[in-house]
Amino acid sequence: MKVVIVKGARVSDGVKQRMIREAALALARKGLQRASFAEVLEASGAPRGSLYHHFPGGKAELVLDALAAASERVTKALDAVAGKPAPEVAEAFFAIWRNVLALTDFGAGCAVAAVTVAAETPAQIDSAAAIFRAWRDQLAALLASGGVGENQARSLAAALVSAAEGAVVLARAERAFEPFDLVAVELVAAVKAAMRPRRARRSRP
Amino acid sequence: MKVVIVKGARVSDGVKQRMIREAALALARKGLQRASFAEVLEASGAPRGSLYHHFPGGKAELVLDALAAASERVTKALDAVAGKPAPEVAEAFFAIWRNVLALTDFGAGCAVAAVTVAAETPAQIDSAAAIFRAWRDQLAALLASGGVGENQARSLAAALVSAAEGAVVLARAERAFEPFDLVAVELVAAVKAAMRPRRARRSRP
Repeated sequence: MKVVIVKGARVSDGVKQRMIREAALALARKGLQRASFAEVLEASGAPRGSLYHHFPGGKAELVLDALAAASERVTKALDAVAGKPAPEVAEAFFAIWRNVLALTDFGAGCAVAAVTVAAETPAQIDSAAAIFRAWRDQLAALLASGGVGENQARSLAAALVSAAEGAVVLARAERAFEPFDLVAVELVAAVKAAMRPRRARRSRP
Repeated sequence: MKVVIVKGARVSDGVKQRMIREAALALARKGLQRASFAEVLEASGAPRGSLYHHFPGGKAELVLDALAAASERVTKALDAVAGKPAPEVAEAFFAIWRNVLALTDFGAGCAVAAVTVAAETPAQIDSAAAIFRAWRDQLAALLASGGVGENQARSLAAALVSAAEGAVVLARAERAFEPFDLVAVELVAAVKAAMRPRRARRSRP
């Protein structure tokens, strides 16, 4: 990535954003305790000791910002499939996570899950809960507008988030796409089976 | 639990088993790095410094033994539903994990997943992979003998393990059974939908 230096504030913002991205990746790769903030600083080109300059709340603040960034990556990817039929929404959600596995050679998973299972503060758990809830709500809305009844859209959304999270863990352990792809096929099939007949959908505005 | 002291070896075995159980619980509660082996020793009534007496390989050995114990708890619970219809197998698998959440007030999840996302050694990843694979194989066999075609039994088994693992993470984050129960309903329904018609099953030995 090319960084154009315009003025101090912009450079600083760029470094801060890079630190947040690198922290999210470190959490997804190594988990909460093994994520090294010295490595995050180095990878983001930030000078040693600049953590508190950008994050007055220290690591605690950086972790929460990293979780928010990880969340936004998913919500933005889902924004791109708004209006698509529900099975395509499900496929897109699995594709987000398959991509993480592929780009990192099974080295990284979900930062939010990694923080949940080793959380150090109530704020971390609250943040994880809000993110999972946001993903579920967004998926439920997309599935509903994509042809699934509202109640089942809600439960299928929970199933998609859970199954993808678990499938990422299995794939990382086995270092293979095989379990992940089996899970994706089953869940997409479940979404297809939940599609309302076309005539029930035509009255939508 | 009452411990009957018969002779040295028996007592020692009891302490070792308690240490393994407490270590598995610590991993499921706190994750790999936050699991405190000092607390494990105390909770199991083992004297300080006795870790290496029981586990010459130290923490690394105790972690692998704890994972094996966590795995066995699941495989034994699944043994109890051998011969049942596939939907009951799926329900039983979710019940195992719901029970963990209930008994620990959402404080603990799956030790194997916790180790996977923060693994420190290839041996830990290999162990996690073998355990997930064992659960998948056992579930696939149970689903197949419970009325699901063999190919789909394999993919549904991967989906059950993944969905349950993810649902545990969501429930822990949200401190609520709601997401977990939605996921269980969807996955059990998927298993029901995959049941072969009865006449196709009668020729089994």
